[in-house]
Amino acid sequence: MKALVFGGPGQRSWDTADDPGIQDPTDVIVKVDTTTICGTDLHILKGDVPAVTEGRILGHEAVGTVVETGAAVTGLKQGDKVLVPAITSCGRCGPCKAGMAAHCEAVGGIGWIFGHLIDGVQAEFARVPYAETSVHHVPEGVSDEQVLFLADILPTGFEIGVLNGRVKPGDSVVVVGAGPVGLAAMMTAQIAGAGKIIAVDLAKSRLKHALDFGATHTVEGDADEQIFALAPGGVDVAIEAVGVPETFDLCTRVVRAGGTVANIGVHGAPTTLHLEELWIKNVTITTGLVSGNTVPTLLALARDGRIEAEKLGTHHFNFDQVLEAYDVFAAAAEHDALKVVIQA
Amino acid sequence: MKALVFGGPGQRSWDTADDPGIQDPTDVIVKVDTTTICGTDLHILKGDVPAVTEGRILGHEAVGTVVETGAAVTGLKQGDKVLVPAITSCGRCGPCKAGMAAHCEAVGGIGWIFGHLIDGVQAEFARVPYAETSVHHVPEGVSDEQVLFLADILPTGFEIGVLNGRVKPGDSVVVVGAGPVGLAAMMTAQIAGAGKIIAVDLAKSRLKHALDFGATHTVEGDADEQIFALAPGGVDVAIEAVGVPETFDLCTRVVRAGGTVANIGVHGAPTTLHLEELWIKNVTITTGLVSGNTVPTLLALARDGRIEAEKLGTHHFNFDQVLEAYDVFAAAAEHDALKVVIQA
Amino acid sequence: MKALVFGGPGQRSWDTADDPGIQDPTDVIVKVDTTTICGTDLHILKGDVPAVTEGRILGHEAVGTVVETGAAVTGLKQGDKVLVPAITSCGRCGPCKAGMAAHCEAVGGIGWIFGHLIDGVQAEFARVPYAETSVHHVPEGVSDEQVLFLADILPTGFEIGVLNGRVKPGDSVVVVGAGPVGLAAMMTAQIAGAGKIIAVDLAKSRLKHALDFGATHTVEGDADEQIFALAPGGVDVAIEAVGVPETFDLCTRVVRAGGTVANIGVHGAPTTLHLEELWIKNVTITTGLVSGNTVPTLLALARDGRIEAEKLGTHHFNFDQVLEAYDVFAAAAEHDALKVVIQA
Amino acid sequence: MKALVFGGPGQRSWDTADDPGIQDPTDVIVKVDTTTICGTDLHILKGDVPAVTEGRILGHEAVGTVVETGAAVTGLKQGDKVLVPAITSCGRCGPCKAGMAAHCEAVGGIGWIFGHLIDGVQAEFARVPYAETSVHHVPEGVSDEQVLFLADILPTGFEIGVLNGRVKPGDSVVVVGAGPVGLAAMMTAQIAGAGKIIAVDLAKSRLKHALDFGATHTVEGDADEQIFALAPGGVDVAIEAVGVPETFDLCTRVVRAGGTVANIGVHGAPTTLHLEELWIKNVTITTGLVSGNTVPTLLALARDGRIEAEKLGTHHFNFDQVLEAYDVFAAAAEHDALKVVIQA
Repeated sequence: MKALVFGGPGQRSWDTADDPGIQDPTDVIVKVDTTTICGTDLHILKGDVPAVTEGRILGHEAVGTVVETGAAVTGLKQGDKVLVPAITSCGRCGPCKAGMAAHCEAVGGIGWIFGHLIDGVQAEFARVPYAETSVHHVPEGVSDEQVLFLADILPTGFEIGVLNGRVKPGDSVVVVGAGPVGLAAMMTAQIAGAGKIIAVDLAKSRLKHALDFGATHTVEGDADEQIFALAPGGVDVAIEAVGVPETFDLCTRVVRAGGTVANIGVHGAPTTLHLEELWIKNVTITTGLVSGNTVPTLLALARDGRIEAEKLGTHHFNFDQVLEAYDVFAAAAEHDALKVVIQA
Repeated sequence: MKALVFGGPGQRSWDTADDPGIQDPTDVIVKVDTTTICGTDLHILKGDVPAVTEGRILGHEAVGTVVETGAAVTGLKQGDKVLVPAITSCGRCGPCKAGMAAHCEAVGGIGWIFGHLIDGVQAEFARVPYAETSVHHVPEGVSDEQVLFLADILPTGFEIGVLNGRVKPGDSVVVVGAGPVGLAAMMTAQIAGAGKIIAVDLAKSRLKHALDFGATHTVEGDADEQIFALAPGGVDVAIEAVGVPETFDLCTRVVRAGGTVANIGVHGAPTTLHLEELWIKNVTITTGLVSGNTVPTLLALARDGRIEAEKLGTHHFNFDQVLEAYDVFAAAAEHDALKVVIQA
Repeated sequence: MKALVFGGPGQRSWDTADDPGIQDPTDVIVKVDTTTICGTDLHILKGDVPAVTEGRILGHEAVGTVVETGAAVTGLKQGDKVLVPAITSCGRCGPCKAGMAAHCEAVGGIGWIFGHLIDGVQAEFARVPYAETSVHHVPEGVSDEQVLFLADILPTGFEIGVLNGRVKPGDSVVVVGAGPVGLAAMMTAQIAGAGKIIAVDLAKSRLKHALDFGATHTVEGDADEQIFALAPGGVDVAIEAVGVPETFDLCTRVVRAGGTVANIGVHGAPTTLHLEELWIKNVTITTGLVSGNTVPTLLALARDGRIEAEKLGTHHFNFDQVLEAYDVFAAAAEHDALKVVIQA
Repeated sequence: MKALVFGGPGQRSWDTADDPGIQDPTDVIVKVDTTTICGTDLHILKGDVPAVTEGRILGHEAVGTVVETGAAVTGLKQGDKVLVPAITSCGRCGPCKAGMAAHCEAVGGIGWIFGHLIDGVQAEFARVPYAETSVHHVPEGVSDEQVLFLADILPTGFEIGVLNGRVKPGDSVVVVGAGPVGLAAMMTAQIAGAGKIIAVDLAKSRLKHALDFGATHTVEGDADEQIFALAPGGVDVAIEAVGVPETFDLCTRVVRAGGTVANIGVHGAPTTLHLEELWIKNVTITTGLVSGNTVPTLLALARDGRIEAEKLGTHHFNFDQVLEAYDVFAAAAEHDALKVVIQA
């Protein structure tokens, strides 16, 4: 088969690779119909994720069709259309039973293994371990593209932003960072009934997208003052979707007493936490990697026409154009791209 | 002043009454700007509520303007525009401190006293006890009519239907009864992110309204089968908004294992509970009288344009026409009326 | 091997049966070290559970040792000491993923299958399907008897009584019915910090046990008055652990406004629900079959010496005496027995 | 009357002061029967709290008897025995209605005003503003000393440590800092059903006390390793009760993935937050000043004999000895003192 193979820092190719086969009785093999590229894939290509070794097939978000099932698989059969999410869940370890597949012990204490610790889904075929406890049937009448982003980015925005942030009907919510995951947080904050959704970013083009994903207000630069003008006393929930100390600190300043800061951003450095001001402020700060518990909910919302996740897919490619898709996604600002859709 | 005075079963008049005055330091007097009529007022007129004695001024929902304040009142002043909600809260008894003003001990163990145990707000002026812990400032730029139904019917639908029912994003919800309170439950279930909202009623005209209040599907007659077709295995949440045994029983049949039945209906008779089937079904059944804790949330949603409660006000009158307003509301079906709006 | 075989209504024998073998890759075979008898087993013997057919091996609570594992089993190995709980969980269906194994779809929509739909654990060996998602490792240093009752009765009292009832520190709790499951509710209500635990029963001998399981007060006959004397205004939580209309109705009378009635009892008949009084009372009523989600918590409490579930085991037998054990348990009152312990 | 008067940094005296009188209709005057000293009082004496001006009477924890009531007070009368808590709640502002009196707007955005913004309770008499929404009746049969520490330290440990930390039955909890507030957290973590309670401190004498307040294990120095030995993978909840960067950082290291760090400590400096490690760890971090919502619960637990808060009172004085009480409390380690009890 053909696959997107990592060849070491800066090296990627659409290459021939061995077809995957069943290794464990809980595996299935899927033919990948539609996949996408994540910011993490770009980090891997830069060499920022040393666990990813040369020769690894990348990718951790896919919609596919089951073509083979392991001996212990009873709930999936050949021909089933499935969403393969970013997180693999063995379903039997302590964290999985507690609803925290992000820390699945069976696969090394972290549920993200596709395109990381095992071969991924930017390929014509992929082996999916612990398939029955990991993948989801795609509801009838729903297209690949409508559910593709439910593999990672939508549940990340929803679980780590909106649910961790405890967004309730009527809440004022600020989302700092209007990239794809920030947009996913806005879209699901709207579903959760937020009254005001304030998007903060430095790029006007991103803020324009924000208004299409549920933001009711946009703010660029001088954020503190503008946010307090919109939400006197501070916002109920501040969602960090960038991953640098400045934006995290902004969130802790603009949250009201008693509010919540939900961190989605992937941070590479420590930050200063102003406990001398925050200790008295009755705030809650949350962090997290998605577990995917809300994927069934998001699939229901997609099926019922309540969520249009496909709006994230701004640029379309087929498998032969995957290198071009990488180029466009790596220069997203230049192309006004959000996410790319890659189809077989 | 003039007021709507109860004269015993079947007797009502728009009559002259003494102007109310401050009795306790926590009282305020409001000039009533806008009020409405509740189904309960019709029950009182039928003689169904013996606690209401002859000479009582009726009404428990109003938007008004503060004209006088008691000595202990510091947060309200003459000229303030306020929403006077159905429930009075002393703010200091056990139930009030626990967020359950519905059972306020200071006013007799039940928070509904206007037009019941004390004179009500279908009058030019009204005395409002425990004003600072009961009334709400109306946000600037919002009309009386936009908030009038936040006095009772919207928070009832939201608190006793949607919140008691624990409606979450993506949930399937059935609302049995598409009268005003059922419509309020649909409107707020939509805000809470429900995926499917199934309205059940016997009257086609009500079901037509339901679609305008967030219902995604309507069902008349043979409800069980149609609901199970829309929500295989049963709905996540069943909201009872009628108040008779048959509709309550329907809710317990169509709720899925692990789901919730939230009763809003005012029941006058016991019902049969099929515990021989329900004991194993992991269901939760809730009942309740509104406490009004969500009124600030609903005011924020109204201010932010997220909720249009004024759609409930289908017929408009001024104070001189209050008897006509009663006639129209009492024959709501005939006039295709939901709620009446009565303005000074 | 030898096993307790159901021979039709009234018929039971300690008989020779075929050794069980692995059928599915997710199975394990355990050697049963310790088991017990449940009230449900007595119902089966009376012929009250038609799904149980002649020849079925009974029993659904055991501590055992793994002797053989299916091909898909990786987290259990020969020699592991495990608790086999009453509820089997496939870990992959919707209800299991949502933490409601009580309604596991893989095993017919009900998680209780041992000694019901498949052969049970009152036998020298037993086949355990979906083993990795169902059984629990027994912590080191803890005896079989300390954890045996965590297979069913403790989690039932905890999940369906205490957690469904939302017992919080300081709460007043009434438990109606001081049989084994009622005692389990008392024991775990104490762990959850209940302030007053009021045991209600008709039998003095049971009430004596109640005091040993955390009850702070006991009440026999004329319960309403005595309960209101102990908890003016009503109790925060009323737990029904009998299963007849009278005791359920008592619970709805003595719960305070805003409180919770948690039904544990297995009901064979409908009851009358006084909605004409309860609609205004802001009560929550819950029902349920245990799912076992709290078993890891209870195992930790047992390991840490915070819970002494073994106190439920009042009478001890070995496998050869299993028929005698049945006789004693069937005449529990006569023998002042709570639960029997049967060891290999 | 006599009172403990702050005379500027380092200056305190048991001095004559004007008797307090009713100023607002919601005030009461109490005769102080029993009071204590808080660590905050020592900070004030050092000059660390500039808002406290010369001439201010200190103290914010008392049990007293009502001697006079304002015109709007209906639920308290002369002779009532009351607990005067550290936090004053107007009961009518947004934060108070939302259960967050810590940020009461009527008294300046912070609920702690006694001995801070108005005269305090280390005096023979004290004026108590917003009395009905702030004070609590002391249950009959309970002594002053049994409830004195429910004014501040017990609800602080319970609300800001145990409830913010979401301690559940069976949880492993580490409490860093075994001073009075840390001991209060241990005592209430035990009530909430914690399985393991690990006390960390540098002082052996404090750790000895810890065992008397519910700690199951004690750790001094080299904390990380010992904690991980007791709770492999980390603790469910880490409670910070010191207020310096090192101990806060320790808490973020020893909490398990998915666990909670609850900060109680009063911090005077920022800390470094290792988001580069924590972003993926699904942790929740909380901060807060007590609001006192749990005081009714704690009073019920004291009345029911479930909590013995009086154990915190190790040294006893009468009003004439208040300066000596300050000396002992300021040198607590030397006297092996926890809290002092000062009686009229």
